[in-house]
Amino acid sequence: MKIYGKEYQSVWMLDDQVLMIDQNKLPFEFEVVTCNTCEEVALAIQNMTVRGAPAIGAAGAYGMALAAMSANGDNFRNLLRRNRDMLIATRPTAIDLNNGVRYVYEQTVKWIPDLAHARTVAQQAALDFAKKSAEDCRLIGEVGQELIKDGMNVLTHCNAGALATVDWGTALSVLRIAHHKGRKFFVYVDETRPKLQGSRITAFELQQEGIGHAIIVDSAAGYLMQKGGIDLVILGADRICLNGDFANKIGTYSLAVLAKEHKIPFYVAAPQSTFDLTCMNGRDIPIEERSQDEITHLREMLIANPGSSAFNPSFDVTPAKYVTAFITGKGIFKPKEAAHKLHL
Amino acid sequence: MKIYGKEYQSVWMLDDQVLMIDQNKLPFEFEVVTCNTCEEVALAIQNMTVRGAPAIGAAGAYGMALAAMSANGDNFRNLLRRNRDMLIATRPTAIDLNNGVRYVYEQTVKWIPDLAHARTVAQQAALDFAKKSAEDCRLIGEVGQELIKDGMNVLTHCNAGALATVDWGTALSVLRIAHHKGRKFFVYVDETRPKLQGSRITAFELQQEGIGHAIIVDSAAGYLMQKGGIDLVILGADRICLNGDFANKIGTYSLAVLAKEHKIPFYVAAPQSTFDLTCMNGRDIPIEERSQDEITHLREMLIANPGSSAFNPSFDVTPAKYVTAFITGKGIFKPKEAAHKLHL
Repeated sequence: MKIYGKEYQSVWMLDDQVLMIDQNKLPFEFEVVTCNTCEEVALAIQNMTVRGAPAIGAAGAYGMALAAMSANGDNFRNLLRRNRDMLIATRPTAIDLNNGVRYVYEQTVKWIPDLAHARTVAQQAALDFAKKSAEDCRLIGEVGQELIKDGMNVLTHCNAGALATVDWGTALSVLRIAHHKGRKFFVYVDETRPKLQGSRITAFELQQEGIGHAIIVDSAAGYLMQKGGIDLVILGADRICLNGDFANKIGTYSLAVLAKEHKIPFYVAAPQSTFDLTCMNGRDIPIEERSQDEITHLREMLIANPGSSAFNPSFDVTPAKYVTAFITGKGIFKPKEAAHKLHL
Repeated sequence: MKIYGKEYQSVWMLDDQVLMIDQNKLPFEFEVVTCNTCEEVALAIQNMTVRGAPAIGAAGAYGMALAAMSANGDNFRNLLRRNRDMLIATRPTAIDLNNGVRYVYEQTVKWIPDLAHARTVAQQAALDFAKKSAEDCRLIGEVGQELIKDGMNVLTHCNAGALATVDWGTALSVLRIAHHKGRKFFVYVDETRPKLQGSRITAFELQQEGIGHAIIVDSAAGYLMQKGGIDLVILGADRICLNGDFANKIGTYSLAVLAKEHKIPFYVAAPQSTFDLTCMNGRDIPIEERSQDEITHLREMLIANPGSSAFNPSFDVTPAKYVTAFITGKGIFKPKEAAHKLHL
């Protein structure tokens, strides 16, 4: 992605360091954070310095590489296992993290006791995982762009952009490539409380691309749909089950119900790493509950009634029946067939 | 209502001044604002120092009284008419404002040219309107409290509390009186972006009453409903049409669609002043669009991408078919019969 005219990825590895754009500070400050250890990567995932299912998948893979590269011979396998579990525990809902971390772990432990080679393999596996993820996201855009027609008003939620992935984005890859092909459309961006990934990050990405957009509060989506102001909903996913149920940022399920009520197509764009082949249906997806401070405070300022508590589920699960189709790098698939088409 | 143990109304008149609790500052500061002129009342309504359909109805009535009380003999009728139109134009969606202002205007102009008496009548008419409104809200609570059963989880949106009315509230009058009668229930409070009337004002009122509650982001309501965590939705209204369509704070329509999808009862509590007998259906309700700064800024701090614009409709219209019933001071009525039952 281009940011202020320069090419970036959301997260990358350089020698024995992992670098990432600080997404808590965007768009008010542009800062690249350096992680020197697996622990630092885990913390950056947990506190959402890096966020978005495919992006934390790559960050997790890089974190495993750092763990392998810094380990000495004693207890190499135990150390890898401990770091693997630490990384995966930072954020339970997005399966990409699990997939990225386990991929590097499994490639690496094969080479024990040849530790020098195992370290090289770990680094290469992480780079491969991130590269494949970025390429998968580019293909999502190529595949999905045909859905975006001239004159459309599109609604998106949270940030499913280049910053949520290694590059290109998922939902925003579709919009980005449609825009590159000259399609004229307008994007309504849900601000996405509590962390405002829509009004901060998606709006920033669309502005960098020159795509026309307006921010709305999350609860205004129904109003726009009722007025005929939305032609298509497109967003990302944090975990997709075998039956087509999927988890995504809190508020996604509400949009799905509203889209159904108004007969508006509802598309979910995701790379292969977001599919969970061990998850039969949405009931099996753990929903991360984050600190109530995310709701009661904004940049450390108290914005809610002092002493009132808040309940902050960070994701919700949308049943497959609400999904028009999944947009993947290999094609646009009906919900119940997507996981199978991708992995067979 | 009791605030810090002392009895208050949201807005009241003392001699030739209108006083109101500053709701932009709640709950972080408790400040009573004094308006000496009708213009000051109009500004306070426009900038939401006083807010909530029944409360701005009373404020508008008091504003008309100030206009009459300060006018001299020349052009008394024109001056009243000008102030009437100025007040009504401040906020177009809530019909209570129109009803309160017109009531005082019509009572007053009858007595021209007896200006001394007309002034007395204006003051008394405003006091009567506010008193009736508060009593109507108390009756809403008495009528509606039977709907709130022990163990229920209730969802409300925005602030339909004592602060949104002269006293007691509409939806919160029902909860308040159920609580006074010893009913045990829990309230989920939508924070209600962009102005956070839920997390600021409703949470404050519930805390003052000692009613258990938790704040959620607006987009989490669907998640809670899907999990079986909501037994009943109850909220207020800004205008109710003859056919039962009604306007209320942006996001209400989304909740109505979600409640229908989950077969959850959806109640709207409102005094007589919120019914618009000239409005056949929701298409006739003007929707106020407020400044995009309400979305992009929070207490003057920029919280969205600099340079991105926002679209900020302040209300939406929910068709009658989504409403289980209207709770009024005269009974609980099916949507299509409510306006008629109240006014016949």
